[in-house]
Amino acid sequence: MLEELKERVYRANMDLPKHGLVTFTWGNASEVDRERGVFAIKPSGVPYEDLTPASMVICDLDGNVVEGTLNPSSDMPTHAELYRSFAQVGGIVHTHSPWAVSWAQAGRSIPCYGTTHADYFYGEVPCVRGLTKQEVDGAYEFNTGRVIVEGFAGIDPVAVPGVLVRNHGPFTWGKDAAQAVYHAVVLEEVAKMAARTEWLAPQVGPAPQYLADRHYLRKHGPDAYYGQRG
Amino acid sequence: MLEELKERVYRANMDLPKHGLVTFTWGNASEVDRERGVFAIKPSGVPYEDLTPASMVICDLDGNVVEGTLNPSSDMPTHAELYRSFAQVGGIVHTHSPWAVSWAQAGRSIPCYGTTHADYFYGEVPCVRGLTKQEVDGAYEFNTGRVIVEGFAGIDPVAVPGVLVRNHGPFTWGKDAAQAVYHAVVLEEVAKMAARTEWLAPQVGPAPQYLADRHYLRKHGPDAYYGQRG
Amino acid sequence: MLEELKERVYRANMDLPKHGLVTFTWGNASEVDRERGVFAIKPSGVPYEDLTPASMVICDLDGNVVEGTLNPSSDMPTHAELYRSFAQVGGIVHTHSPWAVSWAQAGRSIPCYGTTHADYFYGEVPCVRGLTKQEVDGAYEFNTGRVIVEGFAGIDPVAVPGVLVRNHGPFTWGKDAAQAVYHAVVLEEVAKMAARTEWLAPQVGPAPQYLADRHYLRKHGPDAYYGQRG
Amino acid sequence: MLEELKERVYRANMDLPKHGLVTFTWGNASEVDRERGVFAIKPSGVPYEDLTPASMVICDLDGNVVEGTLNPSSDMPTHAELYRSFAQVGGIVHTHSPWAVSWAQAGRSIPCYGTTHADYFYGEVPCVRGLTKQEVDGAYEFNTGRVIVEGFAGIDPVAVPGVLVRNHGPFTWGKDAAQAVYHAVVLEEVAKMAARTEWLAPQVGPAPQYLADRHYLRKHGPDAYYGQRG
Repeated sequence: MLEELKERVYRANMDLPKHGLVTFTWGNASEVDRERGVFAIKPSGVPYEDLTPASMVICDLDGNVVEGTLNPSSDMPTHAELYRSFAQVGGIVHTHSPWAVSWAQAGRSIPCYGTTHADYFYGEVPCVRGLTKQEVDGAYEFNTGRVIVEGFAGIDPVAVPGVLVRNHGPFTWGKDAAQAVYHAVVLEEVAKMAARTEWLAPQVGPAPQYLADRHYLRKHGPDAYYGQRG
Repeated sequence: MLEELKERVYRANMDLPKHGLVTFTWGNASEVDRERGVFAIKPSGVPYEDLTPASMVICDLDGNVVEGTLNPSSDMPTHAELYRSFAQVGGIVHTHSPWAVSWAQAGRSIPCYGTTHADYFYGEVPCVRGLTKQEVDGAYEFNTGRVIVEGFAGIDPVAVPGVLVRNHGPFTWGKDAAQAVYHAVVLEEVAKMAARTEWLAPQVGPAPQYLADRHYLRKHGPDAYYGQRG
Repeated sequence: MLEELKERVYRANMDLPKHGLVTFTWGNASEVDRERGVFAIKPSGVPYEDLTPASMVICDLDGNVVEGTLNPSSDMPTHAELYRSFAQVGGIVHTHSPWAVSWAQAGRSIPCYGTTHADYFYGEVPCVRGLTKQEVDGAYEFNTGRVIVEGFAGIDPVAVPGVLVRNHGPFTWGKDAAQAVYHAVVLEEVAKMAARTEWLAPQVGPAPQYLADRHYLRKHGPDAYYGQRG
Repeated sequence: MLEELKERVYRANMDLPKHGLVTFTWGNASEVDRERGVFAIKPSGVPYEDLTPASMVICDLDGNVVEGTLNPSSDMPTHAELYRSFAQVGGIVHTHSPWAVSWAQAGRSIPCYGTTHADYFYGEVPCVRGLTKQEVDGAYEFNTGRVIVEGFAGIDPVAVPGVLVRNHGPFTWGKDAAQAVYHAVVLEEVAKMAARTEWLAPQVGPAPQYLADRHYLRKHGPDAYYGQRG
């Protein structure tokens, strides 16, 4: 069963450079097995072309390596904290995709300017506060997860499957690693279009709430009618 | 005969990712058979790599599915309304191509800044008004078509083969699906160049009307002299 | 001998989409045979994938077709006028490459901001005046050539191998068609970098004249020392 | 032994177009053999597709060619000066990569806006002063090296493995040619994201120093924990 998990996480990681989201080794994907209480994640600093399903590292939700000979991604404790706090999240992706990073470096949440955004993110994609010196000097990657969770007080992580960490970059998630990758692609596209929207119309406001409602609910929930139903 | 229509619409849909206009499933092309009163359109939410000519859905101009086992694109009622109202339109494309979406999200029509634009669009590419809450909560996709038609009062859709729907994105059209794809590519290119034009010269005005006249008429109408004549 | 000319012009035209300079059929390259007083140019509106060396059209410097069954590019009279007026020019390229078009639509010459520009263009790349209504309504493409020549009064076209036509786009040239293509690539790159330079430093001025002198003369003239000498 | 050096330098040069950093011949990579006091560098003006390991030119640190039949890159004296002055540098790359050139043409150092930058460059990437007329008219390429070295007074070139030369472009370096290429890719990515960060938030300040410290030291020095340890 862990072999299948590693295989899926391997494929999700390989999809990151394929979608143009990562330069060198700057990204990682993971997926959790809730029953066993473990997740598989990319090893740290290994080039994508050298990855294999077997090189994925298995960790528990406290951030301990439970299987694998390589070090896990240095962002592993952030993943662990998100799995612990967001019970409905099944897969997580972190990248340094350039448009999302630009918003994160600007310290700005991405407003919902249109239906592309509204189809996947219900409301703005929040940019959470920067970490304090104490948080950075301490358990830095774990604290990154804590600050994300703190910033999602009152926000449903299923309805808003991504975040910007200030001065750093994006994390996205989904029901599994593949959907987290999908949301990482969407976030980069939305970040690009939102930036250009502002440059074309500096005083622009967000799309009407009723439009965001319609598009999000067109794809999610009991009345969804986009795509094919089983 | 419908087999040929489906084949053409299939190919037009496959050209959308080839031209870099769509991410994932975010686009659709259709073509109408005026004699039979039906059009073929892409099914909803099916990845491009899984499409076949046989998976195209046949609908009538009232928006009823008349052949096919899959759900048509959720934008189907917009296509139907445009075919009903624009008698000379033979094919329609909708995408979320990023530069056109950025203008749509900015709520701005694209001015004609030069000959690239003037060769295909006679005057600005209009951004029509946003839909009201009532229009969005009701027959949303049909109303999208109604708002486009309303915005084209006094505009010849053959001379201006495309539109921006506010907070959403572009629709383009042509004599068939292939030409609608062509115009979708042109619109994205024109949208990109117009944005950069403004950033280089914030006070810039549109190209002279006599230049737009010349370029449009060089390619269209009885005195056209661009290309090869039969 | 004309077969070799057609072959070279064919290859130059095929290099335009390869370098990402043209969308669809929006570009053309030509080369002159000064002894015979003719030049070969791309036919009008033919997709690049359908071109062959044999489809190139031969014209004289008065703009008459002297060989070939297809219509020449509609920009042919502009090429003819430039060959007539610029005796040292051997090849010409016209494209709608997006960064160069953006400057042309902005009605702005491209300042020399650095050594990449100075290595190929000695001074700014001029944006010539727009054509009058009379000029556009008359022999439009010929008048485009006249306006370029007028704008080069006092400028050596060998030292500045390119121009922007207002509200239209770039023409570049060189000793042959291949070098004209090379300069078209350089111009697009220089146009892109100059735009971003201004957005990073709105008050920026051009590079010092002595730097432009050094770089241009490093590559051109008797004391050139860049590259390999025969 | 020099054969291996030439092979590595050849491969590093070939990686420049592969990473999209160079147009035509606009870039060069070198690597030094400190024991022998020589470095291998790309020949001047030779297209990448014509390069072979054997065409690399061997020079001593005074800038004399000691092996090879081709002229070395015209930037060779800059490389020599950097090897002489920066004892820990093993490889050097120069490109005209467009985002880095845009900052150089703007005359601006790149602030550290986030962790992508901080992982590789400890502090801003400096844009050194422009050369005087005397410096340009004299031993220009050597003086370019002198101005870089002058600008690094008080800066550790191992901690800041790159620089912008005003009105020109970037140089990067590393322990060998491969790492210099790596840093050239990082610099271009960082330059792109920093520009967009400013356009999204004109008043933005650099990332907190404690964040830069953490990220740089996470990857460098005795307490580094990123990647796999031997």
